[in-house]
Amino acid sequence: MAIRAPRSFQAALWLPCLLILLLFVTFTSASPPRSSKLGVLRGYNKESKSVYDSSLIESESNKDYQTFYYDQTLDHFNYQPVSYTTFRHKYVVNFKHWRGAKAAAPIFAYMGEESSLDDDIGSIGFMMEGARRFGALELYIEHRFYGESVPYGFTGEEALKNATVRGYFSSAQAIADYAEVIINLKKNLSAESSPVIVAGGSYGGMLAAWFRLKYPHVAIGALASSAPILYFDDIVPSNSYYATVTKDFQEVSLSCYNTIKSSWSEIDRVAAKPNGLSELSKKFNTCMPLKTASGLKDYLHTLFATAAQYDRPPSYPVTVVCKGIDGGANGTDILGRIFSGMVAYYKEDKKCFDLDAFFSADTLSGWDWQTCSEMVMPIGIGPNDTMFPASPFVYKKFKDSCMNTFGVEPRPHWVTTYYGGQHIKTILKRFGSNIIFSNGLRDPYSSAGVLENISDTILALSTKNGSHCLDILPARADDPEWLTAQRNEEFKIIKIWLGKYYRDLHMFA
Amino acid sequence: MAIRAPRSFQAALWLPCLLILLLFVTFTSASPPRSSKLGVLRGYNKESKSVYDSSLIESESNKDYQTFYYDQTLDHFNYQPVSYTTFRHKYVVNFKHWRGAKAAAPIFAYMGEESSLDDDIGSIGFMMEGARRFGALELYIEHRFYGESVPYGFTGEEALKNATVRGYFSSAQAIADYAEVIINLKKNLSAESSPVIVAGGSYGGMLAAWFRLKYPHVAIGALASSAPILYFDDIVPSNSYYATVTKDFQEVSLSCYNTIKSSWSEIDRVAAKPNGLSELSKKFNTCMPLKTASGLKDYLHTLFATAAQYDRPPSYPVTVVCKGIDGGANGTDILGRIFSGMVAYYKEDKKCFDLDAFFSADTLSGWDWQTCSEMVMPIGIGPNDTMFPASPFVYKKFKDSCMNTFGVEPRPHWVTTYYGGQHIKTILKRFGSNIIFSNGLRDPYSSAGVLENISDTILALSTKNGSHCLDILPARADDPEWLTAQRNEEFKIIKIWLGKYYRDLHMFA
Repeated sequence: MAIRAPRSFQAALWLPCLLILLLFVTFTSASPPRSSKLGVLRGYNKESKSVYDSSLIESESNKDYQTFYYDQTLDHFNYQPVSYTTFRHKYVVNFKHWRGAKAAAPIFAYMGEESSLDDDIGSIGFMMEGARRFGALELYIEHRFYGESVPYGFTGEEALKNATVRGYFSSAQAIADYAEVIINLKKNLSAESSPVIVAGGSYGGMLAAWFRLKYPHVAIGALASSAPILYFDDIVPSNSYYATVTKDFQEVSLSCYNTIKSSWSEIDRVAAKPNGLSELSKKFNTCMPLKTASGLKDYLHTLFATAAQYDRPPSYPVTVVCKGIDGGANGTDILGRIFSGMVAYYKEDKKCFDLDAFFSADTLSGWDWQTCSEMVMPIGIGPNDTMFPASPFVYKKFKDSCMNTFGVEPRPHWVTTYYGGQHIKTILKRFGSNIIFSNGLRDPYSSAGVLENISDTILALSTKNGSHCLDILPARADDPEWLTAQRNEEFKIIKIWLGKYYRDLHMFA
Repeated sequence: MAIRAPRSFQAALWLPCLLILLLFVTFTSASPPRSSKLGVLRGYNKESKSVYDSSLIESESNKDYQTFYYDQTLDHFNYQPVSYTTFRHKYVVNFKHWRGAKAAAPIFAYMGEESSLDDDIGSIGFMMEGARRFGALELYIEHRFYGESVPYGFTGEEALKNATVRGYFSSAQAIADYAEVIINLKKNLSAESSPVIVAGGSYGGMLAAWFRLKYPHVAIGALASSAPILYFDDIVPSNSYYATVTKDFQEVSLSCYNTIKSSWSEIDRVAAKPNGLSELSKKFNTCMPLKTASGLKDYLHTLFATAAQYDRPPSYPVTVVCKGIDGGANGTDILGRIFSGMVAYYKEDKKCFDLDAFFSADTLSGWDWQTCSEMVMPIGIGPNDTMFPASPFVYKKFKDSCMNTFGVEPRPHWVTTYYGGQHIKTILKRFGSNIIFSNGLRDPYSSAGVLENISDTILALSTKNGSHCLDILPARADDPEWLTAQRNEEFKIIKIWLGKYYRDLHMFA
């Protein structure tokens, strides 16, 4: 047990809800294992920091967050001697609001996602608000192979380089870890009767939903925010993500959409000219001279997708970008408009534009491994169905690239085999309970989310203008009414779950 | 694909519903890893063969059972290169009654247990009758590391000797195997819409219930016959099994119970005399001279427990044994009465009694491994609470013995961590659906079964006079009405599940 090092609360606010899947999406079709660049998206968030300046959430005192380590089993599903190896698995607890074991007061457990746990502590509004409303304990559990929770004392990157060690890095092992940590903590606190609500966003949201389905005896309910659990195998069409990005831009401005749509060939046309790349570099004020047209196209592609995924109030990045694109003086050409959109996106003045901003260096990330082993989302772009150039998902190409990087094939059907997803309405209509799937429909990932109620207690809460994980971020004074309503509805539902749990507990005690 | 070698149907009838856990029980307290001796219990069944002579079930033609092999993944939860190794996983299909994929006709899938699949083919009345009633396909899937389904081309015993290889031998891997086989078979048959009902008995019954809970997207319902899913950790008292054995004897005859209860000290008294062991050998007509009193006591202990576990109509072995014990002429002494019980138990004349009959040679069995890794049932006997001498379950002793045999510790809490079990009524009251827990209350394992309805669709069907797995054995002309009623009720419930499934399928198609 160790006290967490103090950190600025305001600094924490713009780090939160996993923002990572985006780049996975953007580049699966182009160069598969480049998928998620965690650091980069934090970079993105830094740009948007001001969005959270007026948070309503009062800062938790840093000393309220206590760090613990659990001796975690290396392999829960294998009984070779080496599987018994343990590693230091980090979790963080905030007892401040907890009404205690005697009251069987709830435990809110946050399912760590594909980054260090530190990124989330004090930044998940749902957790902090839940603790206040229900007198709940806040528990944050790190995902194995991220942050400090890496086996054998490796760093995450070292562990990823070892074909044997990274074999232990999977979602099933991770949620088994969560089960062990929760059961152990409840035992240590004599809080066996305390109901556990799990929550997470994006990949962590998938884990929360799956945890509730696989470990109903450990968690009585789950909030799965922006969890694209249906983006596996052939459940939703391959182009769902980019179709939503496109719709977001179309809805804001048809002319903006048309400008973007025609920009790709315009970039190619200019690039093909003698000194064309130099002309493009100048036009887009790049920090480094462009080496290929695709460097610029990748960058714009990601900027538009990012704007759509995090298209949130009050600023609404898609609106901002389109205002830039549409706002040029009459006669501004296509590329000039696109550049104005870029400038508008970054609210600060930039000396020049670093086109590698979204893409970190060539280091392996944990999410690269996860997408190349089991989290295979076949996201692609068909011809003429979005505002982007066609870029179909070609499994063979993806597989070859993964094989090349990691030496093993992806298992693209394993997620649906283990967790299901196909015919989810038929399956879960009469099975399971107590899951909220929350989505913002401007989030392109919502296209693979659960958007309709499945049963009386497996519920979809969508907001037309919401974005990726918006509901679990801290509330702000200027939040729109629909967002406040979505959050209130989540807590209202959870209150009902807790009420039923306590009635059952009383009945069977 | 291969046609199964013909085998006598009558011969198959006495092999069926897994009879194996019994000896696990009997000896956990004494010498842990001696637990289950599969061959032995078949030996027991051979003795009882006549019980099934008048089966109502018409023999399936052997050619109707077709054997297939699936390239099964060695480790579903690990992504090391070696985990991708595949092995030949055996399953057997009977298409005879199947109304086909176009009709979305059901698939009944039998969850193989701790023995070769051959032992069950053609012997599980529930499967054969289910196929006839519902036009269902019969699918039997072998459990990994049993029969032919052993990785690396090893025999089961060879694989068990290898600390690395046996690491892949676990229940979670086994039910993941089942999911892969079922999904793959449905795909090959274009039968994606066919609902799957899983079934199993004893350990296989636990697997059926767990499969429904973990893979609800693969199986729409489960029949778990005599599944002691609550005999883990501290859910039921340690002595539940032997308390039920004792109750069975008490209910049949108090004097029989008293005779047995006083026989243990009497055996010790005689054994302590000069030439006492020789006197006992003579008295019990043993084939080999007794070396210790415990050889005789272990044998009797197992005989009584076996009689209780399989205390089924029409003969009711406990009644038979007690008739022997009580039927001696006035003045017959305690040990003479016990011997008469033994003689009565075996309906045939025996030249002598082989006291090793229940215990096979010192070879490792798969079930030994399973009990020493995860299937840790802390079955023991307290002082004075049964008709047996005290023999508490001492975890440390158990663990040391397992460590000694297999080099790794048991994980006694893993079953409840992964599958749950504690507070099962509270947990499953509002979660999950479509499981039948069937039990015969004369079966000592029923003491760790689910004996009360949990919800509208998670149901307990118990029969006061039923025994271990009786309901899933083939029906007989002289079956008592309560047994026929239990079986009919099972099919009636399954018919309702199927009806709901087809309605949902129609609604969401």
